[in-house]
Amino acid sequence: MTGAPERTSSDSTLPVSAVARLVGGAVAGDPTVEVIGIAPVDEALGDQMAFLAARRYVRHVAHCKAAAFLVSSELDSALPDSATRVVVDDAYPAMRTLLRHFVPEEEWSPAVHATAVLGDGVELGVGVEIGPYVVLEESVRVGDGTRIGAHSVLGRGCVVGSGCRLHPHVVLYHETVLGDGVVVHSGARLGPDGFGYTLVDGEHAKIPQVGRCVIGDEVEIGANSTIDRGSLGDTHVGRGVKIDNLVHIAHNVRVGAGTLMAALVGIAGSTRIGKGVWIGGQSGVINQLDVGDGARITIRTGVTRDVPAGETVSGSPGRPHREELRRLALVGRIPKLLARIEALEREVSKLRGE
Amino acid sequence: MTGAPERTSSDSTLPVSAVARLVGGAVAGDPTVEVIGIAPVDEALGDQMAFLAARRYVRHVAHCKAAAFLVSSELDSALPDSATRVVVDDAYPAMRTLLRHFVPEEEWSPAVHATAVLGDGVELGVGVEIGPYVVLEESVRVGDGTRIGAHSVLGRGCVVGSGCRLHPHVVLYHETVLGDGVVVHSGARLGPDGFGYTLVDGEHAKIPQVGRCVIGDEVEIGANSTIDRGSLGDTHVGRGVKIDNLVHIAHNVRVGAGTLMAALVGIAGSTRIGKGVWIGGQSGVINQLDVGDGARITIRTGVTRDVPAGETVSGSPGRPHREELRRLALVGRIPKLLARIEALEREVSKLRGE
Amino acid sequence: MTGAPERTSSDSTLPVSAVARLVGGAVAGDPTVEVIGIAPVDEALGDQMAFLAARRYVRHVAHCKAAAFLVSSELDSALPDSATRVVVDDAYPAMRTLLRHFVPEEEWSPAVHATAVLGDGVELGVGVEIGPYVVLEESVRVGDGTRIGAHSVLGRGCVVGSGCRLHPHVVLYHETVLGDGVVVHSGARLGPDGFGYTLVDGEHAKIPQVGRCVIGDEVEIGANSTIDRGSLGDTHVGRGVKIDNLVHIAHNVRVGAGTLMAALVGIAGSTRIGKGVWIGGQSGVINQLDVGDGARITIRTGVTRDVPAGETVSGSPGRPHREELRRLALVGRIPKLLARIEALEREVSKLRGE
Repeated sequence: MTGAPERTSSDSTLPVSAVARLVGGAVAGDPTVEVIGIAPVDEALGDQMAFLAARRYVRHVAHCKAAAFLVSSELDSALPDSATRVVVDDAYPAMRTLLRHFVPEEEWSPAVHATAVLGDGVELGVGVEIGPYVVLEESVRVGDGTRIGAHSVLGRGCVVGSGCRLHPHVVLYHETVLGDGVVVHSGARLGPDGFGYTLVDGEHAKIPQVGRCVIGDEVEIGANSTIDRGSLGDTHVGRGVKIDNLVHIAHNVRVGAGTLMAALVGIAGSTRIGKGVWIGGQSGVINQLDVGDGARITIRTGVTRDVPAGETVSGSPGRPHREELRRLALVGRIPKLLARIEALEREVSKLRGE
Repeated sequence: MTGAPERTSSDSTLPVSAVARLVGGAVAGDPTVEVIGIAPVDEALGDQMAFLAARRYVRHVAHCKAAAFLVSSELDSALPDSATRVVVDDAYPAMRTLLRHFVPEEEWSPAVHATAVLGDGVELGVGVEIGPYVVLEESVRVGDGTRIGAHSVLGRGCVVGSGCRLHPHVVLYHETVLGDGVVVHSGARLGPDGFGYTLVDGEHAKIPQVGRCVIGDEVEIGANSTIDRGSLGDTHVGRGVKIDNLVHIAHNVRVGAGTLMAALVGIAGSTRIGKGVWIGGQSGVINQLDVGDGARITIRTGVTRDVPAGETVSGSPGRPHREELRRLALVGRIPKLLARIEALEREVSKLRGE
Repeated sequence: MTGAPERTSSDSTLPVSAVARLVGGAVAGDPTVEVIGIAPVDEALGDQMAFLAARRYVRHVAHCKAAAFLVSSELDSALPDSATRVVVDDAYPAMRTLLRHFVPEEEWSPAVHATAVLGDGVELGVGVEIGPYVVLEESVRVGDGTRIGAHSVLGRGCVVGSGCRLHPHVVLYHETVLGDGVVVHSGARLGPDGFGYTLVDGEHAKIPQVGRCVIGDEVEIGANSTIDRGSLGDTHVGRGVKIDNLVHIAHNVRVGAGTLMAALVGIAGSTRIGKGVWIGGQSGVINQLDVGDGARITIRTGVTRDVPAGETVSGSPGRPHREELRRLALVGRIPKLLARIEALEREVSKLRGE
C-alpha cells in the first residue's frame, strides 16, 4: 500500500488561553501552551489537544501525550493535576466550535461542469456548483449557493432550496422538494415509489404513487437511505431532522422537526413521528401509528402501537421501557420460582405424612 | 425555501356518476358533483374526492372538505348521511383505477441519449429509451419498449426483457437476466458476488461466484436493494414478486411467484421462499431453509427453521405465531405466579404451626 | 422474455483423475470420466461434477444426473456405491480450486476511458483500468493494476492500493484510504460523515467530521454498504475483513483483521471489534463497546455490553449464548410451573380441611 496522506485538519496553532476564550471555558495549567488541532484522548499526538467527554475514555488518559486537554467538568477530576486543560460544562459543543476553527471550510467554486445535462426550463440560483455528469431534468429549480455532487440525478420538476449540499450519486425522483440547508449523502434516494399494491385478478397490481417527497430545512440524510414519495398525498420530513445511513422511510410518513433516526431504522407507511423524537439503530415502526413528540425509541425496538409523547419504549414488540426491563428481569427469576415450588412440594408432602 | 410546485396529478375533472361507473361502485348523494383527483381523507381539498379505506382515518372525516368520498362499504356508515360518496367493496383497487384515470402516463420518447456508452454486440429492441450516461457493456440485449434510466450500468451479457423500467443508478452485474415488465428502482444492485469464502492458510479465500441473478416477469425491486448472483447455480426471483427498499437477497436464494418482501428484509444463502409468501419489514431468514407457499412471516421475525406452507411465524427466533403470542403472555403472568407462590408459602407456614 | 444466455462457466473438460490431483482428493469409481464444470447437487447436468458438502442436500443425490461428485468425506457414505466421486476432507476449498480452473479470469485491458474526469495531481499506477464516467478528484492516487468501475467517484486525496477492484458506482469521500487487493462492490459508500451532532440553541448542530475512512489490504465490501469516516480520528477496517451487503459501520469504529460481517449488520460509533470475529446478519453493536478477538455474534443479536474474546452471544439484548438458550427454554416451562402451583393449591386446600 502506498503511504497515506497526512491529515490536514490541524494546520493552524492556538494557545490554550485562546481555546478557552473560543469555547467559553476555564484554563487550568499553562495557558501559553500551543495546540495544533484536537483529537480523541486515545489518539492525540504531543502537539494536539485531547478531547475527553466520556467516562469510558478516562482509562486512556495515563498514556496520552497530548499538550493539553479539552474536558467536560464532570471528568475534570480524572485528569492528573499537572495536566493543562480547558474545562467546559459539555465538551461536545466546545469540540464543534474548535473544529470549526481548526478545520477551514472546504474551498469550492461555483460552476456548472461541462458534462452536466440540463433539461428545458432548469433554473439555477446564484453561485451554485453542478458537478460532473449531473443530470437535471426539465423544470428543476436549484436555489442559491447549492452544491450538487457528481452523477446526481434530479428528476423532472424537483425543487432544491438554497445552501444545500447533495453529495455524489444522489437521486431525487420527479417533483421531490428540498428546503434550505439540506445535506444529502451519497446514494440516498428520495421520492421512489411507495410499496403499494392491491390484488387484481389474483396478482399484486401496482397502485400509482402520485404524492411527493418533501424535505424541510436543515435536514441531513445519510448515505444509501431511502425516503419514498407519497401514495396519495406527500411524505414529509420536518425541519432539522437528522437521518443516519441505510434508513427507510415509507410513503406518506410524516416526521416532526428535530427528530433523530440512527442507522438501519425503518418507518412503515403513513406513520406519524412527532417532533424531537429519538429512534435508535435497527428499530422499526409499523404503519399508520402515531409516535408522540419527544418519545424515545431505544435501539432494535419494534414499535407496534402508538407511543405517547415523552414515552421511552424498547423491546420487540415495543413496550414502555420500564415494563420491558421488568419483563426481562422476570424471566431471570424463573429458576428461583422453580426452587420455591420444589420446596413447597417437599413441605406439603411432609405435611401429608408422605 | 422557494415555493413548491403545484401537484399536477389531477388535471381532469369527472362527475361522481362517472367515477362510480369506472370503479363499479354505487353512488349516494349528488351524482353530478365534479371531482378533480383523489386524495387521503386527511388531506383532500374541496374539489377532490377523499379516499377512505381504513378505520383509523374515520376520525378525519368530520374535518374533511372533499367534494365527495370513495369509501369501502364497511366504512360507509362512518360518513355523514349528507356526504356524496361512491361505495365499493374494497376501495384500494378502486383507487388504483381512478388514479390511472386521473394521472396520465408519463410521456417519454424512445431514444438513445448521445452520452450512452454501448459495447460491442449490444442489441436494442424497438422503442427503447436509454438515458444519459448509461453504460451497456458488450453483448447486452434490451427488449422492446424498455426504459433504462440515467447512469445505469449493465454488465457484459445482461439480458433485459421488454416493457421494463430501470430507474436511474441501477447496476446489473454481468449476465444478469430480467424478464418482461420488470421495474427496478434507483440504487438496486442485481448480481453482485455472493458472500462466499473458505479458509485457506488461515485466511478467508474468496470462492468465485459463477452463477447468475435471474429475475422473473412483472417483478418490482425497491431502491437500494441487493440481490446477489449465485455461487454455483443461479439466484432466482419468481414472477410478480414485489420487493421493497433496502432488502438483501443472498446467493442461490429462490423466491416463488407473487411473494412480497417489505423493507430491510434479509434472506440468507440458498434458502427457498415459496409462492405467495408475505415477509414483514426487518425480518430475516437464515440459510438453506424452506419457507412454504403462502407462509406469513410477520415483521421483525428471525426465521431459523423451515416454515410449513400457510404457517404464520413471528418472534426471534421465529415460532408459530400463536405459540409466540402465548410465550409473550406467559412472561406477563410471572408476577401472578409469584403472588400465588407467596400465598402458598404463607399457608404452608401456618399449617406447619409456625 | 428473450432467451437467457448459456452459462459460460464451464468451457473446458477435465477427467476425474485430474480433478482429484488438483484438489488433493481420492477417486472412487471411473477416473476417466470427463466433467465440464461443477454445479450444486440439485442442479448439476449430466456432464458436470456435482458438489455435495451439506447434509441437507443429500436428499437431492437420488435424482442427480451428474457424471461425478465432489464430496466431503463425512458425506461420502450418502452416495450410491456406483457413483464416481472425488472425496476430500472439506469440499469447499476444493470447489474453490476447481472453479478457479474451470472459470477463467475475466479478460480486461488497462486503459483510462475517454470520458473519465481526472483532477489535478491525480497519479495512476501501471496497468490500471478507469471505466466510463469515473471521476477522480484532485490528488487521487491509484496503485498498479487496480480497476475502477464505471461512474465511481473518488474524492480529493483518496489513496487506493494496487490490485484493487472497485465495481461500478462506488463512492469514496475525500481522503479515504484503501490498501492492496481491496474489492468494493457497487453502491458502497466509504467515508461519508459520521452521525455526529450536538445541541446548540436547541437544535442539532453538526460536528465537523474530520477523520478518515481507512481500509486494510484484502478487504471485501458488499454492495450498498456504508462505512463512515471518523469524527476525530479515523475509522479503521483491518486486513482481510469481509463485509456483506447493506452493512453500516459508524464513525471511529475499528474492526480487527479477518472479521466477517453478514448483511444488514450495524456497528455504532467508536466500537472496537476484535480479530477473527463473526457477526451474523441483522445484528447490531451499540457505541463505545469492545468485542474481543474470536467472538461470535449470532444472527439478529443486539450487543449492548462488552463481549469477551472467544465468547458467543445471542439474543437482543445480547447475552452469552448458553444463557440466552436457557432463558428461551425457561419461558417454555412456565405452563408446567403453573400446573405445579395449581396442584399445590389443591393440596394445601385439602390439608386446611376445605
